[in-house]
Amino acid sequence: MLSNIRNLRIEWCDCDPAGIIFYPRYFEMFDTSTTVLIERALGMNKIDYLKAYDFAGHPVIETRARFRQPTRFGDEVAIETMLVECGQSSFKIEHRLTKAGALAVEGFETRVWAASHPDDPKHIKSQPIPPEVLARFNSN
Amino acid sequence: MLSNIRNLRIEWCDCDPAGIIFYPRYFEMFDTSTTVLIERALGMNKIDYLKAYDFAGHPVIETRARFRQPTRFGDEVAIETMLVECGQSSFKIEHRLTKAGALAVEGFETRVWAASHPDDPKHIKSQPIPPEVLARFNSN
Amino acid sequence: MLSNIRNLRIEWCDCDPAGIIFYPRYFEMFDTSTTVLIERALGMNKIDYLKAYDFAGHPVIETRARFRQPTRFGDEVAIETMLVECGQSSFKIEHRLTKAGALAVEGFETRVWAASHPDDPKHIKSQPIPPEVLARFNSN
Amino acid sequence: MLSNIRNLRIEWCDCDPAGIIFYPRYFEMFDTSTTVLIERALGMNKIDYLKAYDFAGHPVIETRARFRQPTRFGDEVAIETMLVECGQSSFKIEHRLTKAGALAVEGFETRVWAASHPDDPKHIKSQPIPPEVLARFNSN
Repeated sequence: MLSNIRNLRIEWCDCDPAGIIFYPRYFEMFDTSTTVLIERALGMNKIDYLKAYDFAGHPVIETRARFRQPTRFGDEVAIETMLVECGQSSFKIEHRLTKAGALAVEGFETRVWAASHPDDPKHIKSQPIPPEVLARFNSN
Repeated sequence: MLSNIRNLRIEWCDCDPAGIIFYPRYFEMFDTSTTVLIERALGMNKIDYLKAYDFAGHPVIETRARFRQPTRFGDEVAIETMLVECGQSSFKIEHRLTKAGALAVEGFETRVWAASHPDDPKHIKSQPIPPEVLARFNSN
Repeated sequence: MLSNIRNLRIEWCDCDPAGIIFYPRYFEMFDTSTTVLIERALGMNKIDYLKAYDFAGHPVIETRARFRQPTRFGDEVAIETMLVECGQSSFKIEHRLTKAGALAVEGFETRVWAASHPDDPKHIKSQPIPPEVLARFNSN
Repeated sequence: MLSNIRNLRIEWCDCDPAGIIFYPRYFEMFDTSTTVLIERALGMNKIDYLKAYDFAGHPVIETRARFRQPTRFGDEVAIETMLVECGQSSFKIEHRLTKAGALAVEGFETRVWAASHPDDPKHIKSQPIPPEVLARFNSN
């Protein structure tokens, strides 16, 4: 199973007047973790893999998160990210954010492989994940 | 059922290199909508109701969202926010973001009424929602 | 002189653990105010004027701000935005954010009219502001 | 002179529809760099030094930045941060963000040592920097 771990620190700019992280910041962190996971699987930076496979990105169509304990500025955390399922045009990712080994947040996201809609460039639509990408998503 | 609608515009600063909204921004918008809902129910700004009820806030412990169609900078959207369930120390909120009447995003959140933990100010714990607040949450 | 005023509220999501606005949020607000100013001058939304004039945007090349008094969540503020100078390929904007009539923040920005560099699409370069745009910038 | 360098990567979440960084993100990065600088000077995390010296923070009262070349998602950058001046109750910081050795952004900020106003807890006011802090700011 494809996975990676990022270590980072919760910063002042991530926190709200209650002194704890403002939860939408977790989704920004998860988004970067997903990018890093795919970059490593494909051996290319995102800016390059978007060009190489000529697509618009892998937008989230559904997400879910459970916040088990808050984190605060200065907290060192780890985010473990796993590709847990891969279909023809969508895939599922799970994130586990831990602080000192204890689970603080679980995140779940479903993403699609998206291209501009041929009849309407203002809209995007899902399309089959290229076989080469599928092979890399499934082999790691 | 307590509810309110906010009309806003998706801005350049909300969007990513794909030209569509970066989805964590929706959670920022939903958070503000929840605040406005509670402010109206209690007849006080958040800065005042935090003091009046001497608590730390109403952090999200679980959230979920489905993104049905993307929004882009310049899009005028409406967010309808509803209090759908209220327990002893937690409550559930639903958000429906529409663009030109069409549903673009659905958000679901569970929040707790939180206070600093008496034995450890670094942690927060849920506590009973004050009866006066419960009455207002249930009567509207 | 081209100008406009936006009224908005400082929200919880804009504030940091000191309970006051996290100052980079002001620059997000100023960026939207500049967009609105140009949209009104040109009579088109940004998504349309970027296409109509086939350019990459009007990035900031220099900015400056003075923070005279903090704002907090719940504060109603007004941002007055003025085009104060317009050259061949750049223009200057000033923002005055007030709270209850008192000046809280002054912002100054210099922006260029930018296109992708013809020899290197990864870079952008300034180019002359179209005469039609100049006319509108100077006549309002 | 007190200084430090942070290496980081510009991410998708930092960028706008032009595909380049949305400039307010630089101020978030600079704010974290300033925090790290002070943490190292004082030998404590921010959460601890706020308590140790019983103050409200070191808000920016004036900032300025020049953006010399854009950065894009995937760019590895370095931020060098220096304490360039220190007065009785304020200090000045400079940031130099480079990409592949080339200067991309210069940032300048003036901050004050702030406490809650004794007569009005809703306002903050500058106060003398403690001698112990001054000594550390000047000796490194």
